[in-house]
Amino acid sequence: MIETVIKSYDLDRLAVATIASHTALQILRAAKRRGFKTLAVARPSSAWFYKRFQFIDEVWEADFSNFRLVAEKLAENNAVLIPHGSYVEYVGWRQALEAPVPTFGVRRLIEVEADQYKKMDLLRRAGIPIPRSYAPEEVDRPVIVKLFGAKGGRGYFLARNREELVQRLREVKEPYIIQEYVFGVPAYYHFFASPMYVRVELFGMDVRYETNVDGRTFGLVEPTFVVVANLPLVLRESLLPTVQKYGEAFADAVREALGEEMKGPYSLESIIRDDLSIVVFEFSGRIVAGTNVYMGVGSQYSVLYFDEPMDMGERIAHELQLARERGRLEDVVS
Amino acid sequence: MIETVIKSYDLDRLAVATIASHTALQILRAAKRRGFKTLAVARPSSAWFYKRFQFIDEVWEADFSNFRLVAEKLAENNAVLIPHGSYVEYVGWRQALEAPVPTFGVRRLIEVEADQYKKMDLLRRAGIPIPRSYAPEEVDRPVIVKLFGAKGGRGYFLARNREELVQRLREVKEPYIIQEYVFGVPAYYHFFASPMYVRVELFGMDVRYETNVDGRTFGLVEPTFVVVANLPLVLRESLLPTVQKYGEAFADAVREALGEEMKGPYSLESIIRDDLSIVVFEFSGRIVAGTNVYMGVGSQYSVLYFDEPMDMGERIAHELQLARERGRLEDVVS
Amino acid sequence: MIETVIKSYDLDRLAVATIASHTALQILRAAKRRGFKTLAVARPSSAWFYKRFQFIDEVWEADFSNFRLVAEKLAENNAVLIPHGSYVEYVGWRQALEAPVPTFGVRRLIEVEADQYKKMDLLRRAGIPIPRSYAPEEVDRPVIVKLFGAKGGRGYFLARNREELVQRLREVKEPYIIQEYVFGVPAYYHFFASPMYVRVELFGMDVRYETNVDGRTFGLVEPTFVVVANLPLVLRESLLPTVQKYGEAFADAVREALGEEMKGPYSLESIIRDDLSIVVFEFSGRIVAGTNVYMGVGSQYSVLYFDEPMDMGERIAHELQLARERGRLEDVVS
Repeated sequence: MIETVIKSYDLDRLAVATIASHTALQILRAAKRRGFKTLAVARPSSAWFYKRFQFIDEVWEADFSNFRLVAEKLAENNAVLIPHGSYVEYVGWRQALEAPVPTFGVRRLIEVEADQYKKMDLLRRAGIPIPRSYAPEEVDRPVIVKLFGAKGGRGYFLARNREELVQRLREVKEPYIIQEYVFGVPAYYHFFASPMYVRVELFGMDVRYETNVDGRTFGLVEPTFVVVANLPLVLRESLLPTVQKYGEAFADAVREALGEEMKGPYSLESIIRDDLSIVVFEFSGRIVAGTNVYMGVGSQYSVLYFDEPMDMGERIAHELQLARERGRLEDVVS
Repeated sequence: MIETVIKSYDLDRLAVATIASHTALQILRAAKRRGFKTLAVARPSSAWFYKRFQFIDEVWEADFSNFRLVAEKLAENNAVLIPHGSYVEYVGWRQALEAPVPTFGVRRLIEVEADQYKKMDLLRRAGIPIPRSYAPEEVDRPVIVKLFGAKGGRGYFLARNREELVQRLREVKEPYIIQEYVFGVPAYYHFFASPMYVRVELFGMDVRYETNVDGRTFGLVEPTFVVVANLPLVLRESLLPTVQKYGEAFADAVREALGEEMKGPYSLESIIRDDLSIVVFEFSGRIVAGTNVYMGVGSQYSVLYFDEPMDMGERIAHELQLARERGRLEDVVS
Repeated sequence: MIETVIKSYDLDRLAVATIASHTALQILRAAKRRGFKTLAVARPSSAWFYKRFQFIDEVWEADFSNFRLVAEKLAENNAVLIPHGSYVEYVGWRQALEAPVPTFGVRRLIEVEADQYKKMDLLRRAGIPIPRSYAPEEVDRPVIVKLFGAKGGRGYFLARNREELVQRLREVKEPYIIQEYVFGVPAYYHFFASPMYVRVELFGMDVRYETNVDGRTFGLVEPTFVVVANLPLVLRESLLPTVQKYGEAFADAVREALGEEMKGPYSLESIIRDDLSIVVFEFSGRIVAGTNVYMGVGSQYSVLYFDEPMDMGERIAHELQLARERGRLEDVVS
């Protein structure tokens, strides 16, 4: 069905659209530089901000509770929608799955990610080490509890032992997963699966900056894990082959589980232990906000594949350019 | 009076000058690239270091206790002085207010910043959330005490409760302010108010790296807050409209309070709470050292306004170029 | 002897070689861009990864236990070997000292670094402040213990007092050094000593990201110091003259102690105290992994010397280009 929409597009007027939040500035700036028309779909409260930027051709104010209408209008405008975490949050995963607009990447991952157990299953299938999950009564060490509805780290909490866990779970009214709290440092890897180059690129990485766990709290308040910012980092080079292997294994698992090629940006989110093992506790099937650390300046890893530093927005726009030239847009959207 | 000085300038020989510390390398490198003569005014102990760099045309050794003479000589050299924190520290705020040399930005903010209460008042007037201030006897939670004469974080201390506060205040001999210790992560925003483009640009951000509070101290020593370095970061995009709003509100408050347009670089210094609210505990009315994280490589946010990444030194030089071309230098200095 | 090898080289076919780990991607990418043939010598387990990159002309799989054969083959291929920490780790310092291939920089520093006491002596000779060393019975404060065979921070441990020290030393079977645990923040400075420009360049800096000491461990596990990643930072400008002074003093001490000019990349690894003093607890006589934070994008400090941002790999390649042009290759290798 999306293929039909794509076939009706006027490719000379192809537009790149996204929801005005998350990584919209990065995506739209890059799209404009590479010759696409740019559309931002904004909540009324933040439309003023996006209107400040000349690289955004149109800022639409939208009602996200009925996204179908927006999606149809996007399709009328020859738009490819670049999905991101705020999009899924604003419209909900069911609307996102069904929106009648060509969507960059593998749309069906949105459904997998809506369920923490399915999410972990896909990583397990890929052979990627993941943290052990626990039933409450099994807990014999520090654990982290993640509510299914957690957004940007809000709705995560630490329990140092079973007693603390039991006490805190009393307040919880929604589905959750209990995972081993892995000791080590967090690191988040950005990949790009390219149907045009037929390869998985390790394109960058970041650390999240979370309030208040990364603040100076002197043990005076309980840790919380709300992401507010990202910092760039580079990994010890001897760990890169492992990271690349996991990135490719993820793409293979998607092909196997969903029967379709992985494409577009995605992320594996890990803790690195002091034995240098990497435990992946989460993934994102689309562009992550951590890629913003490279906006306009390009990442250290992008130069491994391209002659000049590039950000993920530029990478997406580049893939779209190639797909358009080659008449293969249907291979990069779903 | 400064307008008279400017009118006497030979604009073809316009120079950019600054005090040799803080952000001098960034400022002077950019000025040189954009065609200005460059002057560094150094303390004798560090002049040798600045003489190493070819982009600095002249390094003057100076006596900062009598800055009037230096300022006059700068004016004879057609120089615009770019003020920064070390300048104010070396010459003192009274000399800085009266120096007979055109000074980039709003000079009168130096006086506001010399008094922690006036400083907080300006933020309050802008409608920007600030930490609660306390009289010692009101304190019922962790607080941070800032001595008026604090430099680069030295002279700040944490008191976990009223008892600790009372005890530590016994050693304090100078004016101070007691503020609520806000739990969350620090983030510092760099703005540029442009009379030439008539806009406030969110140009970058950073985190400070403070010894020993950011060190690995395992609770074995008391926290101190001396800034030694800065790291780049990017903010969650959904927070940017709020940051932009506060940046513009600050410029409005300056206009209202001082009766002159905000111009040049400035900074708001904040803690982000885990409810995503932003509390601004400090501002700087001129270039901050955190902008050095983008020296020569440009910031992620600069590309939202300009085609290539730019650092704050380049931004200043660009504004000066435009002001000179348009015969409007008096609009960017004071 | 190395001079004889160099004289036999076909300079039009000069190759840059390194061991496939650590900073190999940075080094080889830059060498390729600047017109050198590129060779990666890989462990069989990671050769596949390096074969992914077009800028590497040849990936050799090698047996590091007999490195002499590899070195001879490198010399037959007109290669200059760029040494780094993983090279020394893989082949051992004795083989590295004797490998019959021109090696960038001062090779004899490898021997100095193999002994923690000789290492500290060289810093002391340079007049650079170092942490106090202790015999176990002298310890009256927190200390850090470093095993001679420590790699990438593994084999370091903290002892908060003499009792803890004595207890932990019982398990230690190899040589070690006990140093004062300096409270403050870590910072690592990258230098480049250039025989071509006859100067020491302060080229960048970084912070290490260590598991689990930089993780969120809430005091629930013992701190460990295994380096897994690096983050970029910029220093307070008023500290730069001191850092530059120490960098130059190190080069002077090498000349004095070894009777040969310092050349190529090196690093001083420090803690900055809250009185702004800098204590250097370690050095590396060659490229450090922290330079990877600038791969392809260039460092903030590189622009102080060159017109465009540059990474350390590019800096090495640039020096090699100049040395080749001027017929002075023997001045940059040993």
